[in-house]
Amino acid sequence: MYFVRVNMTDRTYQVTEVPEKYKYFAGRALTSNVVADEVPPLCHPLGPNNKLVFSAGFVTGTSAPTAARISVGGKSPLTGGIKEANAGTSWGADLANMQIRGLIIEGQPKEKDQFWGLHITWDGKPKVEFFDATPYTKQPLSAVYPPIYEKFGDRVSVCSVGAAAEYGYSNSGVCFNDQSKRPSRYAGRGGLGAVMASKGLKFIVLDRQGAPGVEIADKALFEEGRKKMIDALRTHAITKPKGGLNSYGTAILINIMNEAGGLPTKNFTSGRFEEAPKIAGEAIFETNKDRKGKEIFNHACSPGCIIQCSNTVYAEDGSEITSCLEYESAWSLGANLGISNLDDLAMLNQLCNDYGLDTIETGTTLGVAMEAGVIPFGDSKAAINLVHEMGKGTTLGRILGAGTETTGRVYGITRVPTVKGQSIPAYEPRAVKGIGITYATSTMGADHTAGYTIAPEILGVMGKVDPLSPEGKAALSRAFQATTAFIDSSGHCLFIAFAILDIASGYQGMIEEINGVLGTNWTADDVVKFGAEVLKVERKFNEAAGITKAADRLPEFMKQEPLPPHNTVFDVPDEALDAVFAEL
Amino acid sequence: MYFVRVNMTDRTYQVTEVPEKYKYFAGRALTSNVVADEVPPLCHPLGPNNKLVFSAGFVTGTSAPTAARISVGGKSPLTGGIKEANAGTSWGADLANMQIRGLIIEGQPKEKDQFWGLHITWDGKPKVEFFDATPYTKQPLSAVYPPIYEKFGDRVSVCSVGAAAEYGYSNSGVCFNDQSKRPSRYAGRGGLGAVMASKGLKFIVLDRQGAPGVEIADKALFEEGRKKMIDALRTHAITKPKGGLNSYGTAILINIMNEAGGLPTKNFTSGRFEEAPKIAGEAIFETNKDRKGKEIFNHACSPGCIIQCSNTVYAEDGSEITSCLEYESAWSLGANLGISNLDDLAMLNQLCNDYGLDTIETGTTLGVAMEAGVIPFGDSKAAINLVHEMGKGTTLGRILGAGTETTGRVYGITRVPTVKGQSIPAYEPRAVKGIGITYATSTMGADHTAGYTIAPEILGVMGKVDPLSPEGKAALSRAFQATTAFIDSSGHCLFIAFAILDIASGYQGMIEEINGVLGTNWTADDVVKFGAEVLKVERKFNEAAGITKAADRLPEFMKQEPLPPHNTVFDVPDEALDAVFAEL
Repeated sequence: MYFVRVNMTDRTYQVTEVPEKYKYFAGRALTSNVVADEVPPLCHPLGPNNKLVFSAGFVTGTSAPTAARISVGGKSPLTGGIKEANAGTSWGADLANMQIRGLIIEGQPKEKDQFWGLHITWDGKPKVEFFDATPYTKQPLSAVYPPIYEKFGDRVSVCSVGAAAEYGYSNSGVCFNDQSKRPSRYAGRGGLGAVMASKGLKFIVLDRQGAPGVEIADKALFEEGRKKMIDALRTHAITKPKGGLNSYGTAILINIMNEAGGLPTKNFTSGRFEEAPKIAGEAIFETNKDRKGKEIFNHACSPGCIIQCSNTVYAEDGSEITSCLEYESAWSLGANLGISNLDDLAMLNQLCNDYGLDTIETGTTLGVAMEAGVIPFGDSKAAINLVHEMGKGTTLGRILGAGTETTGRVYGITRVPTVKGQSIPAYEPRAVKGIGITYATSTMGADHTAGYTIAPEILGVMGKVDPLSPEGKAALSRAFQATTAFIDSSGHCLFIAFAILDIASGYQGMIEEINGVLGTNWTADDVVKFGAEVLKVERKFNEAAGITKAADRLPEFMKQEPLPPHNTVFDVPDEALDAVFAEL
Repeated sequence: MYFVRVNMTDRTYQVTEVPEKYKYFAGRALTSNVVADEVPPLCHPLGPNNKLVFSAGFVTGTSAPTAARISVGGKSPLTGGIKEANAGTSWGADLANMQIRGLIIEGQPKEKDQFWGLHITWDGKPKVEFFDATPYTKQPLSAVYPPIYEKFGDRVSVCSVGAAAEYGYSNSGVCFNDQSKRPSRYAGRGGLGAVMASKGLKFIVLDRQGAPGVEIADKALFEEGRKKMIDALRTHAITKPKGGLNSYGTAILINIMNEAGGLPTKNFTSGRFEEAPKIAGEAIFETNKDRKGKEIFNHACSPGCIIQCSNTVYAEDGSEITSCLEYESAWSLGANLGISNLDDLAMLNQLCNDYGLDTIETGTTLGVAMEAGVIPFGDSKAAINLVHEMGKGTTLGRILGAGTETTGRVYGITRVPTVKGQSIPAYEPRAVKGIGITYATSTMGADHTAGYTIAPEILGVMGKVDPLSPEGKAALSRAFQATTAFIDSSGHCLFIAFAILDIASGYQGMIEEINGVLGTNWTADDVVKFGAEVLKVERKFNEAAGITKAADRLPEFMKQEPLPPHNTVFDVPDEALDAVFAEL
């Protein structure tokens, strides 16, 4: 396996063997360790000393199911701390098949407004060529992917950044192609798109032709694990074919969270949105049927996925508006803005994909802008205009592009739903206490994927616990955060958790897959230890960057404003929050 | 002495005796202790739980010379930490004469866009009445002071906030009248204006008629000290009548700092500005003479000042453009922007006074905006337009009003001269190392007044030390910071330091004045101890607010970009920075 280091200051690169220290790291474990080892914690995130690190997971690129995740790491311009964001895409599988364990982008060119692309091919080992990407800038990504595919061939995978990143927005993601060559799968959170663009880098095109693929140390063990994993995913009600996620996509959660009173509405002033059913997964499914959309059941974001939860939203004439409209996006751009027009909501989502914006951060930013009176709540056409402002880099667009916290500061708003500078996603912590602990304490800023306690608190995975109670939730969040750090390193999609937490053989299968690939003898204990070590490394970086436990807190208003319909505040004591990492 | 607590939630007030704990606190010591005791460190600075605290110094309101300082404290919207900013004004003397040791503004009204004024009179004890101040909003302060004086009489003193504060800008100061009823003396740094406005408070009018004045425990001792202080101030070259400050104002430093290569120019890309002489104190003096301005020699900002360093800048026709154009303002709005047109520079200063903006933060913000290409360096007319945008609350104006760091973030700029969110003032730390240590470690964010090592490093006060050397500067900054915290509590203007650090009897005089007022037996050792305790209280608040030693650093670019003409970087080791407070 290789480390490929690309120096954007002088446009050179180096290919080396993976250093000994990193031999048993991949995905998030790899990106976070490289960032911790090599990035000065106090560097400017958009300056020459930050680095952008790509790594696929241990089993990415193999035949393991639902395992095409690519991790992207660096110092975040949004949080000022360490960041790992991941996405499911053939790009991850291709990177792994080219045996690139770490792709590390360093330095910064002197010239501004000139952008480059990398074309990485296999020539006995990875080979990097640079191409001028400036002609592709300041356009919607859906307009530039076709010519890129034309230039490099249908079999390549494409990573890119959009206009948002070119403008240096703290809200800008790193984009990857889906199975239909759409620029739609995002390592979205934390502004790593701007880090990539700050290095003058617009595209990374992978052509895996001739590459040897992922080496597997113990094929029989791997195969055994893989089968267990497949069985678990095919059995569990949430993950099985034509199950919850496959039929309705992640937006199936809209009605569920609304029912639970935990669907943040109109900039976190209520936990219930009257018009929620209009933007729910069920509504998307029925609307697509009515409109005779090409795909009614959902598709896979990346090769080898069993869950296949990515939807497409079609217009009245049956043409595609966007793919994929996730729960978090339907929430942030819908309920959180008081918007229930599904077509406009889908368009908002598509604009985020085209401009390279994180949908969650965009929606929460517009929520704060609405609270500031920039546009009214519920005005979907005005919201579309605001996202266009962001995409055009206007003065107003730049404010919004800087994210929710900055927008709150610019408009002097106090109800600003952020932790460590990153906005709170689609699950109200006043109604679901465990997820609030994850938001508060995650090394990533507010992030549901960092420790998805929604599984037990709302979905009854591992048995149901009371979402409104703070009891025992610190331990729950801690366990989820550690396990998640491992899953994020495995290459599997986090959604395997639904199946493997309920079906023990699935969990065992995950471990066997990885032991098969690496030739290790890891146990279930090692999973948690490994994850905890990743968290500790991230935590240490954050401390050196000036982020302490005082930042492990939800915003003041959530402790003081009762949230309808339960009329509860976030009442987890600070001591419980501090215990999450103290007892790790 | 009294504590007056005004609750803006329900517009009530309470007058009590000063609590025992605060009996020997005044000025900064009082505001910082009340904030530390009563304000939750993680509260939103513009929310109902922040407080705004006013306190005059120990000898303010007495006949002690150069001692009319008023301290304003609270949690800063700019730094997120504790803030004390002070100004020289009759308002401070009046507050002290009304025996109000602490005026504490609490709570927040539900209605937005409605503003109130307080009219505080003496009726056997302090009496507070509320008046509707909404009609005075969104206007230049120079337009609203005359009707306020008309309404309440010529003898009142007036504290106010301008439009910048009404808009909630993190760059907005608390304004006080000068001796000619101008709204021109600012507790400017850190955004406390927005805190005041967030409480629905626009004015605090003091009418001291009938008030008993400051009680003096030992009049003979006080008188002895006062005479020593007067002698020192009248003797020292910098502070004496027709001396440096009286003749040329603080802007005398323009040529001195330029000569030293430490005048930050064009957003901190050089330490020397070719056109510096055009905006220097000498130029102001000569121009005023040519233009037959009313006051050629400078005037006092507040009653009883010997130094009298406040200048006025006159237009060609002899009419007044602004007062006072300080060194830091002439630098921030001049050299830092590449602007040398004195009339336009004076107009920029006046607009800041009228809109309620801190001149330092405004200039550094415009510097970053110029670097971002919003307007060109050196374009003074365009700069004037930008300040008008701020005053009007336009979209662009709001970005700039949020301060330098936010503007940098919005435009994706990496050369952003801030520490703890507050911009670096008029002395280049790469050319003057000691002041860089003060910027880095001050509890206030970058602040030259927190520990003015310029006195020895540039002006030779206490003997000259090499500004370019980092040696011994941590100890120097520490000593200055502690002594300053005491002076900021004494009620004296910081400029007494020039005289009392060179003339031992002056230093003794300061202590005797205070012992005379309080009936204490404090010694020179107690001065440093007292100051150190204030710093520790502030530091503790900041730590609880999430500000740690990782924030005690200058921005990355100052450690990496050599600054012409000396081509030096800021090379004080982190260990020396950490030692400032570790050894306090």
